[in-house]
Amino acid sequence: MDYYSGQINKLIEALGSLPGIGAKTAQRLAFHIVNMPEEDVKRLASAMTEAKSGVRYCKCCCTLTDDELCPICKSPARDKKTIMVVENSRDLAAYEKTGKYNGVYHVLHGAISPMLGISPADLKIKELLERLKDDVNEIIIATNSSIEGEATAMYLSKLIKPIGIKTTRIASGVPVGGDLEYIDEVTLLRALDGRTEL
Amino acid sequence: MDYYSGQINKLIEALGSLPGIGAKTAQRLAFHIVNMPEEDVKRLASAMTEAKSGVRYCKCCCTLTDDELCPICKSPARDKKTIMVVENSRDLAAYEKTGKYNGVYHVLHGAISPMLGISPADLKIKELLERLKDDVNEIIIATNSSIEGEATAMYLSKLIKPIGIKTTRIASGVPVGGDLEYIDEVTLLRALDGRTEL
Repeated sequence: MDYYSGQINKLIEALGSLPGIGAKTAQRLAFHIVNMPEEDVKRLASAMTEAKSGVRYCKCCCTLTDDELCPICKSPARDKKTIMVVENSRDLAAYEKTGKYNGVYHVLHGAISPMLGISPADLKIKELLERLKDDVNEIIIATNSSIEGEATAMYLSKLIKPIGIKTTRIASGVPVGGDLEYIDEVTLLRALDGRTEL
Repeated sequence: MDYYSGQINKLIEALGSLPGIGAKTAQRLAFHIVNMPEEDVKRLASAMTEAKSGVRYCKCCCTLTDDELCPICKSPARDKKTIMVVENSRDLAAYEKTGKYNGVYHVLHGAISPMLGISPADLKIKELLERLKDDVNEIIIATNSSIEGEATAMYLSKLIKPIGIKTTRIASGVPVGGDLEYIDEVTLLRALDGRTEL
């Protein structure tokens, strides 16, 4: 690609290393950035370095935050006795957007995956068990409905149930608005298994 | 979105202002960046600011480059008497990738668009006319096949033809591998108009 300048090539390469950004998108973004006002470029670049250096794990729930404690753990309005365990901060955000969950969270930062070499020790499980020493009513396991998420849910339930704390798993089934015709068989069977009385 | 830290929100917002990056992608990228090694984040951020501050227009063809002249204008192997006029540096790159074009380029940095308020004076047309004072055999107009690209091509041909330089336009028609069934009528008629003898 010697028809571009070296600096543009470097930028294209750096952008292309981000997830979901292919060669074409990286190229388009690079040219957009070069044509952006200088202060906007500086703002974007410093947002990156500042977020990287400034953000840390919440001391309680391990989500990403600026402070020692995240806004949710700090809030006196939240029910600290109900803990929803999620894989990452984006999943936490997804449940927060529903506006209906009033408990707190625990972010594992991943799921058990022998394929990717992620063992339970790599997740924030030790921190979760530490929290269970306080008075906790229920642990809601909301890891993804993938093989890794299910494996993590199984692992956690085997760990937590013996302590005597109620451990639940979010339901798996046909998504709202989903057409049965287009749903895979595993999900259909899961929906059947999880049927509730009307 | 007060369930994220302020710095992450700032980063999501800055990334979301890039073209083609929606709210979900910005969120995914922001979390990826926060989890990247610190030196990678710094490299990405500095690639942006350096590309912005270091890149300038080639003195001859107006493409984006680090030096006074771009590698193509500098090359003694290129035919300086054939100039292909393109809308932007990405279009130049697209033709360079074919590896078959041996002439040089002229980058307009846009196309005439009354809708977007882009007039001929906003494009690098003055610089193109300046180049025509040297010995030039042919001007190949390779602006896009959009309304703006066609308007720009018309405008340029009216400007250049009176000077007595051969002015050509790249062909418009059915793309290679294209199925007639799925091609719009305007393109089909364009392909018919541009038919050549076998």
